[in-house]
Amino acid sequence: MKVAIIMGSDSDFPVVEKGLNILKEFDVETEVRVLSAHRTPHLAIQFAENAEANGFEVIIGAAGKAAHLPGVLAAVTPLPVIGLPILSSTLDGLDSLLSIVQMPSGIPVATVAINGAENAALLAIEMLSIKYPELREKIKAYKETLAGRVLDKDAKLQEKLRG
Amino acid sequence: MKVAIIMGSDSDFPVVEKGLNILKEFDVETEVRVLSAHRTPHLAIQFAENAEANGFEVIIGAAGKAAHLPGVLAAVTPLPVIGLPILSSTLDGLDSLLSIVQMPSGIPVATVAINGAENAALLAIEMLSIKYPELREKIKAYKETLAGRVLDKDAKLQEKLRG
Amino acid sequence: MKVAIIMGSDSDFPVVEKGLNILKEFDVETEVRVLSAHRTPHLAIQFAENAEANGFEVIIGAAGKAAHLPGVLAAVTPLPVIGLPILSSTLDGLDSLLSIVQMPSGIPVATVAINGAENAALLAIEMLSIKYPELREKIKAYKETLAGRVLDKDAKLQEKLRG
Amino acid sequence: MKVAIIMGSDSDFPVVEKGLNILKEFDVETEVRVLSAHRTPHLAIQFAENAEANGFEVIIGAAGKAAHLPGVLAAVTPLPVIGLPILSSTLDGLDSLLSIVQMPSGIPVATVAINGAENAALLAIEMLSIKYPELREKIKAYKETLAGRVLDKDAKLQEKLRG
Amino acid sequence: MKVAIIMGSDSDFPVVEKGLNILKEFDVETEVRVLSAHRTPHLAIQFAENAEANGFEVIIGAAGKAAHLPGVLAAVTPLPVIGLPILSSTLDGLDSLLSIVQMPSGIPVATVAINGAENAALLAIEMLSIKYPELREKIKAYKETLAGRVLDKDAKLQEKLRG
Amino acid sequence: MKVAIIMGSDSDFPVVEKGLNILKEFDVETEVRVLSAHRTPHLAIQFAENAEANGFEVIIGAAGKAAHLPGVLAAVTPLPVIGLPILSSTLDGLDSLLSIVQMPSGIPVATVAINGAENAALLAIEMLSIKYPELREKIKAYKETLAGRVLDKDAKLQEKLRG
Amino acid sequence: MKVAIIMGSDSDFPVVEKGLNILKEFDVETEVRVLSAHRTPHLAIQFAENAEANGFEVIIGAAGKAAHLPGVLAAVTPLPVIGLPILSSTLDGLDSLLSIVQMPSGIPVATVAINGAENAALLAIEMLSIKYPELREKIKAYKETLAGRVLDKDAKLQEKLRG
Amino acid sequence: MKVAIIMGSDSDFPVVEKGLNILKEFDVETEVRVLSAHRTPHLAIQFAENAEANGFEVIIGAAGKAAHLPGVLAAVTPLPVIGLPILSSTLDGLDSLLSIVQMPSGIPVATVAINGAENAALLAIEMLSIKYPELREKIKAYKETLAGRVLDKDAKLQEKLRG
Repeated sequence: MKVAIIMGSDSDFPVVEKGLNILKEFDVETEVRVLSAHRTPHLAIQFAENAEANGFEVIIGAAGKAAHLPGVLAAVTPLPVIGLPILSSTLDGLDSLLSIVQMPSGIPVATVAINGAENAALLAIEMLSIKYPELREKIKAYKETLAGRVLDKDAKLQEKLRG
Repeated sequence: MKVAIIMGSDSDFPVVEKGLNILKEFDVETEVRVLSAHRTPHLAIQFAENAEANGFEVIIGAAGKAAHLPGVLAAVTPLPVIGLPILSSTLDGLDSLLSIVQMPSGIPVATVAINGAENAALLAIEMLSIKYPELREKIKAYKETLAGRVLDKDAKLQEKLRG
Repeated sequence: MKVAIIMGSDSDFPVVEKGLNILKEFDVETEVRVLSAHRTPHLAIQFAENAEANGFEVIIGAAGKAAHLPGVLAAVTPLPVIGLPILSSTLDGLDSLLSIVQMPSGIPVATVAINGAENAALLAIEMLSIKYPELREKIKAYKETLAGRVLDKDAKLQEKLRG
Repeated sequence: MKVAIIMGSDSDFPVVEKGLNILKEFDVETEVRVLSAHRTPHLAIQFAENAEANGFEVIIGAAGKAAHLPGVLAAVTPLPVIGLPILSSTLDGLDSLLSIVQMPSGIPVATVAINGAENAALLAIEMLSIKYPELREKIKAYKETLAGRVLDKDAKLQEKLRG
Repeated sequence: MKVAIIMGSDSDFPVVEKGLNILKEFDVETEVRVLSAHRTPHLAIQFAENAEANGFEVIIGAAGKAAHLPGVLAAVTPLPVIGLPILSSTLDGLDSLLSIVQMPSGIPVATVAINGAENAALLAIEMLSIKYPELREKIKAYKETLAGRVLDKDAKLQEKLRG
Repeated sequence: MKVAIIMGSDSDFPVVEKGLNILKEFDVETEVRVLSAHRTPHLAIQFAENAEANGFEVIIGAAGKAAHLPGVLAAVTPLPVIGLPILSSTLDGLDSLLSIVQMPSGIPVATVAINGAENAALLAIEMLSIKYPELREKIKAYKETLAGRVLDKDAKLQEKLRG
Repeated sequence: MKVAIIMGSDSDFPVVEKGLNILKEFDVETEVRVLSAHRTPHLAIQFAENAEANGFEVIIGAAGKAAHLPGVLAAVTPLPVIGLPILSSTLDGLDSLLSIVQMPSGIPVATVAINGAENAALLAIEMLSIKYPELREKIKAYKETLAGRVLDKDAKLQEKLRG
Repeated sequence: MKVAIIMGSDSDFPVVEKGLNILKEFDVETEVRVLSAHRTPHLAIQFAENAEANGFEVIIGAAGKAAHLPGVLAAVTPLPVIGLPILSSTLDGLDSLLSIVQMPSGIPVATVAINGAENAALLAIEMLSIKYPELREKIKAYKETLAGRVLDKDAKLQEKLRG
């Protein structure tokens, strides 16, 4: 099982990396690429067109501003494409979000929150878990870990408040 | 292969139905339910908790306004959850969209465009196609049909303009 | 008289604390918990379901982004629920606000300003004052204090401007 | 138990009426007034100042555009004030919502959704139920009715889909 | 000729001061007050009601968030009221702007840009210049100074670019 | 006393007319012109440059979309300029409002609500009333009429509710 | 001289047609095509790649929602690309506008107003006029016609107002 | 070939400079001016009116807030005008963008992204390349350089990830 992560710019990597770490934690193979829908359109399209043949099962596209990358990838692959809107220096992420989520009928992009790289990764894993039961079990364990962390933080807060 | 479509209100059905028709077209079994995150929270949660055991592989949650349904479903299932924001009578769909897509880290919801029921269905099919190769082939055919329709419309326009 | 303050994340505490201090100042008993609508949904729901029996009379729910917590609590308790939208790193608080305030008909959440923890607390006190006349008197005194502070600041400004 | 509903304009009545009907259904006494924060400021303030002495326990203020009414009422009464933003002909309700919900620290307004008159009424009832146990029981019954309606609609949908 | 500047909070003074300085520069008498529409509503209203009798000819009201102050002042005075929206920590000034500018029919507030204190002052001066011809001349001179500064900056830029 | 009303397009007249009627009601002389900042910039500028000499004391500029007209007029006249944003077919008036109100420092435009033609007229009258005491008295009477209408509507509502 | 107009959907034609008519009026040769960035990406890209060789000098791309078409065309042609955002059924055109205008550095799209087909055409003509002096003269004449129409409307309004 | 860059304020220069450098890199002659639509309207208009006669072929207008400069320039020149919205201290650039892009029919402004100075320059070059074939070749080379940089960054990322 293999997930491609395509970024429109290498400046997106600090955000994207959080998702990459989760995919590694779940032992999902990844390939991370910098491929721009606007600066290297042919390479981006070629990557997406060959993704299925190259063994990828999900593609994550991360981009900011007029973020066309996930939609462009989705246009040329039958694989599910996850869109990760990246916060840029103006408009507080709204442009990235709308450019990714408001896809016209026929070509969906599974959009997560602005800068939500961890959720992009987890969504990829949930998609893969349709086929790979071992991931399903790991997701359940991960959710329990998340819950456990909340309980820990709650316990610490109680202690602090009792102070 | 089976997809659950949960609506927060039966008034969402005219939108949701477009997605339902696509799932039928792809021979994906569906169950469509009206279950509210706020009015019938236990039933909604129970449905999502049992969804995996009941053979569902993807859940679509459709809701408007402060649209919590997809997030609430996602919180209690390891299945991928698709969020379909429904346009309501104020704020032009922005509230539904942000309430669904801006999920906190750990619990992703795969969000599609406001009223994008067809894309919710197609995304579900793409997810299922990770496991079911026959769906992959149908998606490819569907995309070719879409392309064909564009070509037809282009041809008709040329004719009209030559008129 | 007892108020529950539920936060979706312990990172909300620096904001929430300002409200907590006001509740203490009014001698209202509080319980502050970290309980997530998405990471620990059952605990959050259980808390809200038992809140009335456990002697709580108002619940404050604080959350950011796709802030479902107050709505989820409100769904399972007959107690009034106050929603406190928390500013997060994108969209300037608009997502938190809309996710909390735009509740569908049937399940109200009494929403205050983004990061308005003091007002969440004062609103809880005003609600309690329906039953507890001593709080009503304290509110009146508090408002006079607020007015007095404005007068002081005005006086200081006059002095400063007179130089 | 008595709730005041103050509208900034009589054109708000078709929205407000939905809330009024709920209050009647719960046997809560109401007084509905047209009093403008801008056109009859003294009357509006006088009403709010006397509201406690006149036996009111909650005030609902409904207004559109630069909707100052709820805040102005809240400034001069220790009673809890519920703000009901009314959709007007421009900006899709955003102006009404922000003018009501973004109150500065010290003077909370319990804001509900744009045009959410039913929720304004239900919130008032929840507040009153802190003191009046009979309302608490009615709220529980009401929520069950809401849930029942969802179940009915779900059942009808199942029937329809089965064809 | 005398202009009142009313701020909702003394924290607005660093912004307001820029306008105050312009009024001084034009030899317009000013009175600057901290008076809150919500915390000291009676004082704010009293000030506005007496403003005409006390010799004021224009009132500037500066406020942030759900910025009701200018509208509340305008409701009780026949003097022209200028609204100065103050940027606060969330929503990037949009709440302040809409709360001030979207006044219902009958009670106008002359709104300037967010944090536009200089323009609030210049607008007050332009209003006064209807009556006081000497101000009209000063405005013309001021505009020439502004133009001159642009020319200077242009000249400096030319120099810099020529290197 | 004479007020100029400049519209960017004759399609704005149905909105502008409401303000024109109020000015007539107050016996203020008016001149209404269609002059575009973009299509007839020289005429618009010429009008504004000569406005003072031609006896105008206030200018109202009404425009939609990228509404530059009021700012362009303000740039070349020392008279106070009132900006009236007109709702157009996209963006719900937000573009008109921001294009008019967010003027840079030095050149204020006194902005009223989107489509707020009545308030533009009343603001002009308030400005004129600085010089013309008879208008001041008429404004007071007008405000009393407004208040009276609210009282009437309130009385009618009471009657209706009493049944 | 030849301009290509590419629409993402034939439903955009009623808007686009207004621009087409202007291009015809200026005797600019046009080719109008329906080519989708998402449904027929290869054809869209192929068209843009060959556009220069095929004698086109400017491309207009019209699209709605997550409107990637103009950016995708711009990515593969050295010709100037004009982006025409089309209003769709949600979000009032904001999604189309931001998806087109917020292009990342390196690949500009010359964006016009939402549904601004006439301006897209005029902008194309202005670009062509850099090379073709006869178009420059026609633009000047066109602008005079526009000015003339404003004068006519102004004259008619004067007549109407004089009654 | 010569491009004029007009800024509304010299504080815009740090943004504008990035575009200036690109124009120099392409050996396009430039003139950079500080000319305000509001503070020096006559000079701005005069510049634009004479621009064609003075040998300019494209004008770039950069401005923030209620950014009228590009529209005002476009009103008086048959040359194509590029609008560069500058981010200012409130509203995150939305005011600048809408004030520039939402031009009424008849007077287009070719708008680029907020602070997108490089794209403003590149768009000017693309326009010029309609006439000057040497620029066309340079654009192609520039795009290849951009693509090359993406490839380099991608290669570096691969190296980094391989560790």
